[in-house]
Amino acid sequence: MRPIGVDVMGGDRAPGEIVAGCLRAKRELGIDVLLVGRPEALEGLDTGGLEVAAASEVIDMSEDPAMAVRTKKDSSLVRLAEAVRDGRASAMVSAGNTGATMASALLRTKRIRGVLRPAIVTPIPVPGAATPTALLDAGANVECSAEMLVQFAHMGSAYFTARYGVAEPRVGLLSIGEEPGKGGPLRKEAHALLSDEPGLRFLGNVEGRDVMSDVVDVCVTDGFTGNVTLKALEGGMRTLSTAILGILLGTEEARAASEPLLPAFAGLAAELDPESHGGAMLLGTDGLCIISHGSSSATAIVNAIRTARDMVEADLVGAIRRAIRPERPGEA
Amino acid sequence: MRPIGVDVMGGDRAPGEIVAGCLRAKRELGIDVLLVGRPEALEGLDTGGLEVAAASEVIDMSEDPAMAVRTKKDSSLVRLAEAVRDGRASAMVSAGNTGATMASALLRTKRIRGVLRPAIVTPIPVPGAATPTALLDAGANVECSAEMLVQFAHMGSAYFTARYGVAEPRVGLLSIGEEPGKGGPLRKEAHALLSDEPGLRFLGNVEGRDVMSDVVDVCVTDGFTGNVTLKALEGGMRTLSTAILGILLGTEEARAASEPLLPAFAGLAAELDPESHGGAMLLGTDGLCIISHGSSSATAIVNAIRTARDMVEADLVGAIRRAIRPERPGEA
Repeated sequence: MRPIGVDVMGGDRAPGEIVAGCLRAKRELGIDVLLVGRPEALEGLDTGGLEVAAASEVIDMSEDPAMAVRTKKDSSLVRLAEAVRDGRASAMVSAGNTGATMASALLRTKRIRGVLRPAIVTPIPVPGAATPTALLDAGANVECSAEMLVQFAHMGSAYFTARYGVAEPRVGLLSIGEEPGKGGPLRKEAHALLSDEPGLRFLGNVEGRDVMSDVVDVCVTDGFTGNVTLKALEGGMRTLSTAILGILLGTEEARAASEPLLPAFAGLAAELDPESHGGAMLLGTDGLCIISHGSSSATAIVNAIRTARDMVEADLVGAIRRAIRPERPGEA
Repeated sequence: MRPIGVDVMGGDRAPGEIVAGCLRAKRELGIDVLLVGRPEALEGLDTGGLEVAAASEVIDMSEDPAMAVRTKKDSSLVRLAEAVRDGRASAMVSAGNTGATMASALLRTKRIRGVLRPAIVTPIPVPGAATPTALLDAGANVECSAEMLVQFAHMGSAYFTARYGVAEPRVGLLSIGEEPGKGGPLRKEAHALLSDEPGLRFLGNVEGRDVMSDVVDVCVTDGFTGNVTLKALEGGMRTLSTAILGILLGTEEARAASEPLLPAFAGLAAELDPESHGGAMLLGTDGLCIISHGSSSATAIVNAIRTARDMVEADLVGAIRRAIRPERPGEA
């Protein structure tokens, strides 16, 4: 397998934590990694002999994605996407500017034929369940058509099978009531299309309360609702974690009492930690693209690289290509 | 003050828990309550001499709201809304069919002049903060215009001031990025209008992660996004509570260790419990309307009645009327 390409310039803790993660992926998991970035930024860092693809520019977190990708042709992100396109890397990983990561992947590796729009899929951890819920679109497309939501269902199902080994994942359409008519014209049309669509295990509408529960595997929605839902849950979990830590460690007595419980709470915290889950992924482009949290640590990067390797081995791009089946001339 | 009217037929645990809640509100808080429902359903229940307004019909949880309100003119919900309109009750409380509760309030008590559409406001608990976040619209309007979102900001601010005593509540527009241009045409237009709107403390865009945190007081969005966000958080909190209970009570050793921590965890659970928060409220109708959870217990009803009493005393309807200020002929 060709190496996993990593943007060493992207993320709040780049390049140090990013390079450290790449090195651990190589040493602990035996995964070959291609580092893409400014050679000067790597000076003084232990790169362990990993191959470096030089890029002289960096796209900042705050830059306008489309503009940046168009003007910074020698940026680490653009060069990384080109490495995937040209076969020097088998997948790309970045913790940098999300929009620019998407734009680079889209402009350089192109869409899979027939895909209307790529979507971001994010695993939502569900404590107590065997698998998370895959939520998509988690933010790539603010406005969606019903046909796009049907494609998201296919891409999400292919992802869930490749990632979690579930043969026929349960697909739900996120809405505000279980009845088919609920949720306005877009959901109504999408519900009708999804009900008739072959190759999907469509449960019908699901509600917000089902996202973080073991009711559905693939939860389909537009990128606005998906992004708000994802971040609301992340924020809620963070607020609650702070409150729980306050209870466990707030007083001397509490600290003493909670000591035997801490391993279990640490396990729950790890289950909830986005860093454990390998990051979000862009689905629908002709090359794998993993979008890590901006705050990614070395551990998050290791998990992202591992996930990228697994998805290359599972041929996720091929599975999506087969699921989308572009209509040929002459077909209805 | 005239009594608070309560639909004793509405809710999964009606009429027993509902009547028990009304009785406790009278005995513990000295609030006068008007019970609206079928006299036969109250037979054998202790109503403690509370006044009863008879209604021969009941709107079920699963009925189509608009149709039910039109055809069941002698239903408890329709009669309850009429009691508010006619001045027999100063507010209405129901744990029944949410859509039918809204429709009854809207058709019988009418909109406040100038209000484009009423909205549902729901307090989202924020552990560790002095006040919750008021989220609206939490489900009344699937599709919204920018002008509606501006009105929601005013109504939500009036609510927050009346309910939590905060003079100039911080208003945020829920979107998928902090920059004004983020979130598509609706948010862009709403951001521009809100930025120019007098009488509001507008912070700009907020993101999903800010909903359950102490960053914003009034979080404005369309009813689809609001409902999904609210329910996602409720579902997430439930899943996490189950996981935490599993840790605290899962083994004999854990039970022993966690005993001194249980009062603090019970306090956190109470903070998060929707039953503690007095229910959702319909804003924009010319009469107060509280929408309780379908699963409401007597305690939830007591809190809803208390909230209704407080909002009548604070003249929330008058505050909304002043905030909306309908344009007069001749004004732009």
